[in-house]
Amino acid sequence: MAFSFEDVPTEDVEADERLWSRLTDDVRRLVDVTIRGRADEERVARVRALVREAADLLAEDAAPGPAGVHYNAHGRSWNWGNTVVGVRNAFAPPVRLEWGDDDVVRSAVTLGAAYEGPPGCVHGGVSALLLDHLMGETASARHTRLTVTGTLTLRYERPTPLGPVRMAGWIAEEQGRKVTVEAWISPDADGAEPCVRASGLFIVPSWAAESDGGNPAPPGGSLD
Amino acid sequence: MAFSFEDVPTEDVEADERLWSRLTDDVRRLVDVTIRGRADEERVARVRALVREAADLLAEDAAPGPAGVHYNAHGRSWNWGNTVVGVRNAFAPPVRLEWGDDDVVRSAVTLGAAYEGPPGCVHGGVSALLLDHLMGETASARHTRLTVTGTLTLRYERPTPLGPVRMAGWIAEEQGRKVTVEAWISPDADGAEPCVRASGLFIVPSWAAESDGGNPAPPGGSLD
Repeated sequence: MAFSFEDVPTEDVEADERLWSRLTDDVRRLVDVTIRGRADEERVARVRALVREAADLLAEDAAPGPAGVHYNAHGRSWNWGNTVVGVRNAFAPPVRLEWGDDDVVRSAVTLGAAYEGPPGCVHGGVSALLLDHLMGETASARHTRLTVTGTLTLRYERPTPLGPVRMAGWIAEEQGRKVTVEAWISPDADGAEPCVRASGLFIVPSWAAESDGGNPAPPGGSLD
Repeated sequence: MAFSFEDVPTEDVEADERLWSRLTDDVRRLVDVTIRGRADEERVARVRALVREAADLLAEDAAPGPAGVHYNAHGRSWNWGNTVVGVRNAFAPPVRLEWGDDDVVRSAVTLGAAYEGPPGCVHGGVSALLLDHLMGETASARHTRLTVTGTLTLRYERPTPLGPVRMAGWIAEEQGRKVTVEAWISPDADGAEPCVRASGLFIVPSWAAESDGGNPAPPGGSLD
């Protein structure tokens, strides 16, 4: 479960992110229309041929394993496969987090057909997935420490409609290596009547402070 | 959030599922290699052109909204966009559930690069997503009643490695319309040392028993 140190300039990392995130946007759209499409058998066959040709072009020299989490000597980290924030993961909306001056971490994201559970509504487990990630990042205190999820409790108060949703998370309590975070998800910006409320206990693992063989210390963040 | 009654023979539903699930398998592979690929800029451009052509072919007459949840007069239901079990959702592994004679609901699924959180490990929120769904289905008692998630508590005991994982869920207690379900996820078939343990309170909503304008009653299941 180690972070990988890479001797790569930040500008190269960011050029790669621009290149691959454009493809990922295209794949995300394909995932969406694969759910919503009404094509006949002949057209589905044409689509399949195109998709297989595209995948074959990427598969020939693809890395054997998952993307992992990487960092360079300048404190830049990247986790391109991450289910929630990975810029090369077509399922990740992707979520982008904003740290407010009030120490509340917020995110606004639009959830379409791929996130459905009850008809027209966000799958309850998707709310759990997104909130878990936002809360872990919140516990990391602007990436100044590493955290792992200990326990997570979700209270489902009403269905969350598909479409634009907001999330917010904040640290409610800290005791030693234990950080309690609260959060909500709602279509409303102020979260006056959240659809799901969450409370989580996040832990700073003792090994997170250990050295890494001479490489720069990996950046803080959530191990979600 | 209504279920949609469709006057469609079950054999037509199943033919459609076969057609679209093959495309979905292809798209799922594309999502995976979009994360793992190491192609250069020129090859990524060729892949993008193919993916855009494929998506355009589907978009031209795609349904405007999400897939929804449908059922026919023969008790067959389908929720093709569902994030966990939808056969047209390329993010859904898809999870398939097995009801055991011992009333334990089990699932075995392989989670690859798209489900990553910590390096090489399943995103904690993905475990929450999959367990929420399995537990909701467990609460539905073989689809004999509808349930919604009330609260869900997850205890993260150790990281879940990417690769093959097992899940199991069972009803621990029932009181009126409240059903308590417990579950775990682990690489081991017997769950002796689960990676994540979960407990959830599921509710049978009072409206679930109401009539549907003369159509056959929608099938039971989890509104997740």
